[in-house]
Amino acid sequence: MAVSPYKQLEQEFRRLHAFRGALALLRWDAAVMMPRGSADVRGEQIAALETECHAVLTSPRIARLLDRAEANSQGLEDWQIANLREMRRQHDHAIATPVALISRLAKATARAEAQWVEARREGRFEPFAPYLEEVVKLVRDKAALLGQALKLEPYDALVDEFSPGITTADIDTTFRALSRRLPSLIREVTALQESRPVLPLKGKFPAEKQRALAVEIMERMGFPFDRGRLDESEHPFTEGVSGDIRVTTRFDPSDVFSGLLGALHETGHALYDLGLPQDWRDQPVGRDRGMALEESQSLLIEMFVCRSRAFVRYLLPLLEKHFGVSGPEWDVENVYRHLTRLRRGVIRVDADEVTYPVHIMLRYELEKKLLSGALAVRDLPEAWNAGMEQRLGVRPANDTEGCLQDIHWAVGSFGYFPSYALGAVIAGQLYESLRTQVSGLDEQIARGEFGALLEWLRRRVHGLGAKVSAQELIQLATGRPLSAAPFIRYLENKYLESVARSAAA
Amino acid sequence: MAVSPYKQLEQEFRRLHAFRGALALLRWDAAVMMPRGSADVRGEQIAALETECHAVLTSPRIARLLDRAEANSQGLEDWQIANLREMRRQHDHAIATPVALISRLAKATARAEAQWVEARREGRFEPFAPYLEEVVKLVRDKAALLGQALKLEPYDALVDEFSPGITTADIDTTFRALSRRLPSLIREVTALQESRPVLPLKGKFPAEKQRALAVEIMERMGFPFDRGRLDESEHPFTEGVSGDIRVTTRFDPSDVFSGLLGALHETGHALYDLGLPQDWRDQPVGRDRGMALEESQSLLIEMFVCRSRAFVRYLLPLLEKHFGVSGPEWDVENVYRHLTRLRRGVIRVDADEVTYPVHIMLRYELEKKLLSGALAVRDLPEAWNAGMEQRLGVRPANDTEGCLQDIHWAVGSFGYFPSYALGAVIAGQLYESLRTQVSGLDEQIARGEFGALLEWLRRRVHGLGAKVSAQELIQLATGRPLSAAPFIRYLENKYLESVARSAAA
Repeated sequence: MAVSPYKQLEQEFRRLHAFRGALALLRWDAAVMMPRGSADVRGEQIAALETECHAVLTSPRIARLLDRAEANSQGLEDWQIANLREMRRQHDHAIATPVALISRLAKATARAEAQWVEARREGRFEPFAPYLEEVVKLVRDKAALLGQALKLEPYDALVDEFSPGITTADIDTTFRALSRRLPSLIREVTALQESRPVLPLKGKFPAEKQRALAVEIMERMGFPFDRGRLDESEHPFTEGVSGDIRVTTRFDPSDVFSGLLGALHETGHALYDLGLPQDWRDQPVGRDRGMALEESQSLLIEMFVCRSRAFVRYLLPLLEKHFGVSGPEWDVENVYRHLTRLRRGVIRVDADEVTYPVHIMLRYELEKKLLSGALAVRDLPEAWNAGMEQRLGVRPANDTEGCLQDIHWAVGSFGYFPSYALGAVIAGQLYESLRTQVSGLDEQIARGEFGALLEWLRRRVHGLGAKVSAQELIQLATGRPLSAAPFIRYLENKYLESVARSAAA
Repeated sequence: MAVSPYKQLEQEFRRLHAFRGALALLRWDAAVMMPRGSADVRGEQIAALETECHAVLTSPRIARLLDRAEANSQGLEDWQIANLREMRRQHDHAIATPVALISRLAKATARAEAQWVEARREGRFEPFAPYLEEVVKLVRDKAALLGQALKLEPYDALVDEFSPGITTADIDTTFRALSRRLPSLIREVTALQESRPVLPLKGKFPAEKQRALAVEIMERMGFPFDRGRLDESEHPFTEGVSGDIRVTTRFDPSDVFSGLLGALHETGHALYDLGLPQDWRDQPVGRDRGMALEESQSLLIEMFVCRSRAFVRYLLPLLEKHFGVSGPEWDVENVYRHLTRLRRGVIRVDADEVTYPVHIMLRYELEKKLLSGALAVRDLPEAWNAGMEQRLGVRPANDTEGCLQDIHWAVGSFGYFPSYALGAVIAGQLYESLRTQVSGLDEQIARGEFGALLEWLRRRVHGLGAKVSAQELIQLATGRPLSAAPFIRYLENKYLESVARSAAA
């Protein structure tokens, strides 16, 4: 019996999935295990596999099979139709960018990344500027071609790569709502927190013990150590495929929380990947629904679940067990205040959840201007510093603390930043619904029980894979379209609670 | 300007090299880092990449380019001509075996390997027999097809896959010479060693300290830890590519030597791979010259260099430094006797260098009979046990200690075993020449200086890559064709030295 075009496509995408899994391991190893001097060899391996993936995805055979499968889709089930749509999406994205442009971009970003490292070390943007300019120029070309092919505005086409179905209009609506409330909220919270002192949490917390604590909590949350690992790397990340998921963090022996919360943030990503529909795990429809959704899951775990009083109740006995801590500073209220302290600073990755979206909104505004040409690359540092001062009242002392702090633009990732703030907004909306539907959630968290939480996320988010759009998923899970209101309510409730309420808790 | 067919081939094989490097990492990770439950996912990734390599190698495009490049080879240099010959070799090997047979063999060996693990646990060959029978049948088919295509006898065709250019005639000549001398030599050495008692070397040797010692010695030998790693795994192995070479061993806290010598054996492989011609590192001619040569390099380091009095002189202060050992048992002579003690037992991987070839010769005889049909799979255990008794005077207590001890046949590796013994013979011949040409070698080794040794190996062996055949390489390096005589002389000198000489040293 002849294999149908749709089934042939499934086979081709199964092969692609295996290549991408291999790529994930090559990247994980490069960040965690690889000797420094092997970077060139690894670069060749990654480039060869990426080129192969691109070649498969853009092959005439795939194009032909897609046409034929779409013309004969009557007999297909829901999931198959969604899978076919996602295959088409990947193909259209890949074919819109000519190989020559991809190759020029790969070389330009490799050069720019090296120069970025150098520029950061010296704290000077200027020598890096021409390399970034070249990247901006090529990304602009790519956005134009992608936009043409996908019938989207150029910047929307870039966003669509990372967060399918999310548009500039969505982002603008969301960011406008945040901009209306965050500045005043930051002032109010700052004033409130200044009136509530925090005792310092000093001590020595050896990496090995921090690791043991992180593993214990991750296991409770359902991270499967028989199909995943926790390692250390320069920056926390999650890599791999469902079935072999690898999470990293970085333990600071003088800080009991940074490594743990890094690991738990990544555990949020991992739980999403692990909860994706198993029947479709090697198909496009079995993948996550883009970076905004991914980030919503990591933030939901780290910010919403773990930076809560309930979680601190669960955590304190563990801290005592692993580190033998004791004293008045290790009570629920003081530790909770630590975990919810505003850090209104110049560095994005050190920011708290209230000021974090402000960092993102600045980047969003600047990267759109860079791409449209409204802002010249050489004027970026001043625009950055002025933006930070105006939005957060802080000014970077040099470019390393300013517009050189993130790697994203150097490696050509334009259109990615919004997903961080959208992730927080989506997490806010999901968590509000979740709390109305899962009763006794705080009590469960305080007991270290995460089953009902995870069950809700699996059913409403993870298990859908890429079957519906991000917008549809949010509507299905919460009964409402994407809105910043729940996130703002969450921040107000959490950060403006009266002293009376906090003392009673 | 049009790219010549030869240059196009170089590009294709560069891509293949990158895929194989990725495969090497997938395998290394599976043995060293991967969580147990991820084996299926990893299997899919490896199968997809192997299939891709096979598809590239057997593509009509490669066939066409090979024909055209061979027809226009006048302008090519020596190395390019050799490279073209190796490309042809790989293509002919790959195309001789139909994809359907490879796939059947992959499935049969996967099943057989699982059954082999089970059979070993139970110590019973019988339930494993039908699975091995299926593998033997398919390997027989493969050998016939390969032999037809390469104009070789079927078994020679299998040997040619692992050790190009080595024939059954070479193996038979070599093994006849070994058979004439080894049985009596084993008796003589046994008698001599019984008259020379050895003090036991007891102690606790923590893995971390053993690791530090191994790293210190490997660094002295030139292992580049900025482009390589040492890790632990179930069995020692070397994996990776020149530029990212990964060695493993296994540390036994009650045995100070097994883990170290495992690491040094693998360092011999790694030094070979690192010394391959850098200009050709991503081309077929830049690869090692097959398994017999590979094994000659690991044995030369482990057996010839490291199990010597000179090396023990270098080693003793290090043992004192890392483990604080002292006492009469830790003198040069006693430690040397330990390292050269005959272990006439039933297990190959525990054997010393005198009895080791006997284990191999039995396997060689049996695997040829299995393939020709002269020995039925069900009769293997008895043939094995009788062979062991007759050749070494020991009889396995069960099949786990007998014909189930090696994984090779279960995974379809027939024609591989001879390379272990050939490696020892080649090492003997190379080392004899090396010693006449590098003066003061023992003094250098005793000082932990390995530069001149390595330089000789680089120039005479490593640096040639696959430019000449194994036979030619031996002729060029030693001025003589392959011969077992130097290896036998080496064993006689080392193991039959008079007590007087040993006491004087």
